[in-house]
Amino acid sequence: MKLLVIYTYPNHQSLNYAFLQEVIKGSNANPALKELQVLDLYEENFNPLLVFNEQKRRRDMYKDPNTEKYREQIMWADKIVFIYPIWWGRPPAMLLGYIDQLFAANFAYKDKKGLFPEGLLRGKSVVCISTMKGPAHYPFLWLQNAHKILMKKALFNFVGIKKVKFFEFGSMESPKGNQRKKLEKIYRYFKKIEE
Amino acid sequence: MKLLVIYTYPNHQSLNYAFLQEVIKGSNANPALKELQVLDLYEENFNPLLVFNEQKRRRDMYKDPNTEKYREQIMWADKIVFIYPIWWGRPPAMLLGYIDQLFAANFAYKDKKGLFPEGLLRGKSVVCISTMKGPAHYPFLWLQNAHKILMKKALFNFVGIKKVKFFEFGSMESPKGNQRKKLEKIYRYFKKIEE
Repeated sequence: MKLLVIYTYPNHQSLNYAFLQEVIKGSNANPALKELQVLDLYEENFNPLLVFNEQKRRRDMYKDPNTEKYREQIMWADKIVFIYPIWWGRPPAMLLGYIDQLFAANFAYKDKKGLFPEGLLRGKSVVCISTMKGPAHYPFLWLQNAHKILMKKALFNFVGIKKVKFFEFGSMESPKGNQRKKLEKIYRYFKKIEE
Repeated sequence: MKLLVIYTYPNHQSLNYAFLQEVIKGSNANPALKELQVLDLYEENFNPLLVFNEQKRRRDMYKDPNTEKYREQIMWADKIVFIYPIWWGRPPAMLLGYIDQLFAANFAYKDKKGLFPEGLLRGKSVVCISTMKGPAHYPFLWLQNAHKILMKKALFNFVGIKKVKFFEFGSMESPKGNQRKKLEKIYRYFKKIEE
């Protein structure tokens, strides 16, 4: 199993970074894991803006040389792990800009007749680890799980990724947030996963 | 009534730009409208990345001199109109990055005891005009209106904006999309609105 971890947080003094460390430690203790790559979007100075116009066609995005190495990473990975905070009910603009550019037609999916396209990333799986300031039941009770629906149905299922696992951690700035327990949960999960 | 229009599309050869023109034309024919400003985020080269760290504190965002003129625009406006395409079920990263940075604590809302903060932008209203490639019923039937829930509940209501009107236009790349009719609908709406 080859693992790509995409970390989206503006700095390393954060619980998000602590989760990244647990993913790495757990994976390194997992005999099923062959290789691991980390993409730290802020550190990488990734440019999140999708631009297209008369010179730079949207239909050529799937072969844009500026994003080629990121497409290769995605193709290489069996499992992609996203670590990010929830801002305004959804991931930060940086991560969504990565998606705007990378999940291009003819790379991530192929249009065909009917409502749904052919997903070109099928066979891969995804884990989303997200942190919130508010309590964990807030997105469920108040936002009808809009974050999960967007990630799973509007994005991953659309490109053929059926297996999507979420860890949504709430109350992350509170002393009652049980941070230590949550970090251990992530460590154990990555130590054990087999596919 | 003072109107701020925030346009988010990578270029001007688009239906989104045609909608912008109708908003402007309709508003100019509306006697209730006093002033109108347009913020074209791509043209403006707006930097959508929220950065915070030990030097640049998140709690100081509300007075960041780099975003001051945008905060002034928001304070100035009675109504804010957002024009954008739907990518992966939600607005482009550029617009969400504008929100990540502008809707800061102590500018857009103020934390207080309890689950919900005090909205500091109350009294303003919002109109969202969005375009999709897929059919208009897709977000409703398949995504349980996740886009609207995120914009209305997770964002605007949170900062005190109660009045949020949506125009979600589907099938925008299809000859069956009735583009002319939709453009006229927007013109008529902005010609008539009174508050």
